[in-house]
Amino acid sequence: MSMIVNRRDLDFLMYEVFDLDRLLATTRYGDYDREVVTAVLDTAQTIAEDKFLPCAAKLDANEPTFDGEQVHIIPEVKEALDAYREAGFFSAPFDEKLGGMQMPFMVSSALGGIFTCANIGIAGYPFLTQANANMLEAYGNEEQKNLYLPPMLEGRWYGTMCLSEPQAGSSLSDIRTKAVEDGEGRYLITGTKMWISGGDQNISENIVHMVLARIPGGPAGVKGLSLFIVPKIRVNTDGSLGENNNIALAGLNHKMGHRGTTNALLNFGENGACHGTLIGEPHKGLSYMFHMMNEARTAVGSGAVMSGLAGYLYSLDYARNRPQGRHPHEKDPESPQVMIIEHADVKRMLMAQKAYVEGGLSLVTYCAGLIDKQAVADDDTDKARLGLLLDILTPIAKSWPSEFCLEANKHAIQILGGYGYTREYPVERFYRDNRLNHIHEGTYAIHGIDLLGRKVRMKGGAALHALEQVIQQTMNEAREVDRLSGYANELGAAFEELKNTAIIVAGTDNINLMLANATAYLDAFGHVVVAWLWLKQGFAANKGLEEDSGEADFYEGKLAACRFFFRYELPSVYTSFALVASLDDTCMTMNSEQFTGQ
Amino acid sequence: MSMIVNRRDLDFLMYEVFDLDRLLATTRYGDYDREVVTAVLDTAQTIAEDKFLPCAAKLDANEPTFDGEQVHIIPEVKEALDAYREAGFFSAPFDEKLGGMQMPFMVSSALGGIFTCANIGIAGYPFLTQANANMLEAYGNEEQKNLYLPPMLEGRWYGTMCLSEPQAGSSLSDIRTKAVEDGEGRYLITGTKMWISGGDQNISENIVHMVLARIPGGPAGVKGLSLFIVPKIRVNTDGSLGENNNIALAGLNHKMGHRGTTNALLNFGENGACHGTLIGEPHKGLSYMFHMMNEARTAVGSGAVMSGLAGYLYSLDYARNRPQGRHPHEKDPESPQVMIIEHADVKRMLMAQKAYVEGGLSLVTYCAGLIDKQAVADDDTDKARLGLLLDILTPIAKSWPSEFCLEANKHAIQILGGYGYTREYPVERFYRDNRLNHIHEGTYAIHGIDLLGRKVRMKGGAALHALEQVIQQTMNEAREVDRLSGYANELGAAFEELKNTAIIVAGTDNINLMLANATAYLDAFGHVVVAWLWLKQGFAANKGLEEDSGEADFYEGKLAACRFFFRYELPSVYTSFALVASLDDTCMTMNSEQFTGQ
Repeated sequence: MSMIVNRRDLDFLMYEVFDLDRLLATTRYGDYDREVVTAVLDTAQTIAEDKFLPCAAKLDANEPTFDGEQVHIIPEVKEALDAYREAGFFSAPFDEKLGGMQMPFMVSSALGGIFTCANIGIAGYPFLTQANANMLEAYGNEEQKNLYLPPMLEGRWYGTMCLSEPQAGSSLSDIRTKAVEDGEGRYLITGTKMWISGGDQNISENIVHMVLARIPGGPAGVKGLSLFIVPKIRVNTDGSLGENNNIALAGLNHKMGHRGTTNALLNFGENGACHGTLIGEPHKGLSYMFHMMNEARTAVGSGAVMSGLAGYLYSLDYARNRPQGRHPHEKDPESPQVMIIEHADVKRMLMAQKAYVEGGLSLVTYCAGLIDKQAVADDDTDKARLGLLLDILTPIAKSWPSEFCLEANKHAIQILGGYGYTREYPVERFYRDNRLNHIHEGTYAIHGIDLLGRKVRMKGGAALHALEQVIQQTMNEAREVDRLSGYANELGAAFEELKNTAIIVAGTDNINLMLANATAYLDAFGHVVVAWLWLKQGFAANKGLEEDSGEADFYEGKLAACRFFFRYELPSVYTSFALVASLDDTCMTMNSEQFTGQ
Repeated sequence: MSMIVNRRDLDFLMYEVFDLDRLLATTRYGDYDREVVTAVLDTAQTIAEDKFLPCAAKLDANEPTFDGEQVHIIPEVKEALDAYREAGFFSAPFDEKLGGMQMPFMVSSALGGIFTCANIGIAGYPFLTQANANMLEAYGNEEQKNLYLPPMLEGRWYGTMCLSEPQAGSSLSDIRTKAVEDGEGRYLITGTKMWISGGDQNISENIVHMVLARIPGGPAGVKGLSLFIVPKIRVNTDGSLGENNNIALAGLNHKMGHRGTTNALLNFGENGACHGTLIGEPHKGLSYMFHMMNEARTAVGSGAVMSGLAGYLYSLDYARNRPQGRHPHEKDPESPQVMIIEHADVKRMLMAQKAYVEGGLSLVTYCAGLIDKQAVADDDTDKARLGLLLDILTPIAKSWPSEFCLEANKHAIQILGGYGYTREYPVERFYRDNRLNHIHEGTYAIHGIDLLGRKVRMKGGAALHALEQVIQQTMNEAREVDRLSGYANELGAAFEELKNTAIIVAGTDNINLMLANATAYLDAFGHVVVAWLWLKQGFAANKGLEEDSGEADFYEGKLAACRFFFRYELPSVYTSFALVASLDDTCMTMNSEQFTGQ
């Protein structure tokens, strides 16, 4: 069993649940069929297992260092990224006309997941580069694209995103970095950026920063932010590298996990002119950034799933091979010990991991499929509908795996017991890595506010309605299947509560109170969405069983996980929805002194 | 504000909630009054703040090392323990006749908590020494006590507990370490012990191991385990140190957290005779060990609370002083930023931390008070009743804080955002430290099985009945208070479900199925217990308010946390009890292959 991917599950999701075949039949993805997809994923798995996985623990224990002059990273990282680059994977999701592989996003997302599961610290670099290039492709002008896209798609230059500053993390309206036109169409960038993943390194030939900054005289707040390309080394008009662009590394952050990707504090233009070029129009920087953020956020969710998956596969393997203890009914101390997978609570923890991890994987795979469907849709109404689904599911895809796949990692440690708590085993590392995901790309609370304050109400509830339609379709199908019809009804009831709660909350005109319990709403909404996706998986598994494929274990396992989710997980949403609907103000009205009495 | 203790809260719990005054009025604790208790805790706080707290981060970053010959620990650890020893605290809970301070356990537990909160890595050494001495005092013979107790109570020799072996962690019946009588009343010990906290170090003059081992010819399983004193350095009959006793340190474990306390793999008698002396009778070792385990388990819970408290106090202070963002109703981006404590979701995370941490603290303080009441009870019936309460509450006191104070630490990281995820701030360390507590002193699952399979049923339900009585008393009092009567009714309803669930589960004769969802029962049972303790705190706070003490913020904060627990937390128990009562077998019937299909 591979420790970084269950290929059978990937195939199940892509072909049996989310109908990748239909996408492969379109002109856009004409170069791909099942065989090609399999070959691509085989290559990815081989590189991930040979180059990414073996150095994951070493990279965690030997994080990048900065000697005041230069960043040092263990050499295995560059070797791994060289192999990744040589396979052409930097360009996987990009159009052929740009030199890309034009891979369905569902496949490139699976591919990225395999590398992330193997070594999240290394996988961060290509992920950020692709996100950067993606934004440039959408909003850059021809000159910018010609100059920057090819080396990024070839994996010679890496990309970053520079939003946060020491005083402005979640509060982007307080960004202070300045960009002043120099009279020659260039901008001089000055300011400090914080938490920049991949912000400096010694691997790529150049680093292309996407920087949010203010052009003086613009509006206050987020409406005055513009977006700039700011390379570490200046780029001549022929694409060759020029002078150093005066971006100083002020220091690396030392994180609990995610230690493999450098995370930097950068000073722009502190010791000389730092040149940037404006992307698109002035003051529209945040909207451009948000274009990329939907994908970046789903990718954060995918990262959380992959840390969860790594722990699930490892702890499953351990539980299958570690003898310890006996069943409660066995009173003979001289009877042989059983493998710990025989213990009910170990099974429960494995089942919870399966339900969270494979549920989360289905969520991010579905979102990736929506992006593909948008790319091939020729009907504007349908395109808009797919966009609405993405809008409402993005906060879920980012947040739900962050919370529940972290919980999965907690279970993985528990299954290994004392061993799991040591650094000799990888599961504690996955747990440390995963804790980041509540924080970056919008904190957990911000996604709750986004969901309850904006997404469920946007366009007269159109996004919520679009979601209801697809859920309804799954319920209708599942009602025809004996072993699933009860779950279909339970899902319908939970979705009604989800809607009613949104309506009740919208009824107050105190916006602070309306959003006071938005996080509880986000959690419960996520559970309803994942219950739906488990029902969808259950339906596909039942179909697979009926077709008598000889894979009864796989399909029965899926149906059991579906049952687990409906019995052990979904019922909790009623408590949460009731709390949110009660507009409870216990926390909101607490004053600072009351917490400790001083 | 101190970062390691809220003294006002300690006083509230000891005097206003749990009636320490009544204990102090007994002959046994005649040397103590409020003034003395305050002075003792002042001294503890000063030493903890001056010696334990400042090196906590350094110790975490520079864990003990073993060069093959010797263990190296940063010198600040010995300095801190010297100060602790000089204050006489090693002997705090022991009787005067043994040279102890004869402190009420409620006070010595608070004292231990202060040190644990400041530096859990150092606090482990005296805690283990006290636990060891406590067992020796209970079951050792006079010669053993005379030889070993004085140096341990003086803090010159430290103690450990040696139960686990590489192949036998939770499954103590599979322990293999042997003890063979040598014809002179001594035993020769051979075997390997694993996960031994404080198993070796370079601080104390000697180390006294309490070792579970088998005398050949005894019964199989746990009924054949005997308990031995096995010193690192042999002890002559006059108490002076003799030869090395051939206990070899085979290696130190490298943990995710709890890095300050050495954790060892020890080989006994590998390179020469290793002498041990039998404690009590042969084959009764486990029952002696269990005597200590109730206290050790409550202490694990207390450790979890203290890691939680450290994160709560730190993140509260941070939230009060970090400006970021604006209220949802504030649309002007040029308005000043607010302190993040103003944000509803930050308040929610602080409130959850308060509810978990102060709820957990009330739980372990209550349990400590039960031990004191036992010590002064002159009525056997009452003593037995107090013992039953301890029996049924021990799995809760161990497990509930492990789960929910870890959740509190998760919130503390979140409040600090990206900063909280870095090792420059202490909250990620508390989170790493706390993750251990589900595992040691009986795993989470084992306590669920202990609770549902044994404790709720023991002596015809006598322990559950004793708990019901004390809860009933609180409900009766609270029903007389307008703002609490609703919660009293909610608590009553939840307790009914708790009982009904136990009855339903007891109705099956399939013991494996009966215990399949014991963990969910443990969680929900814990929530009911903590809801009761919050009601108790609410009642005391209401009384404080009525007496117009000028501390309205403190008392209103307590009442708000009580309300939070009843509105945000307690309702979840119905879902859990319903699941347990349904005797769901989804996890139990899953077979190994179904998890992945291979």
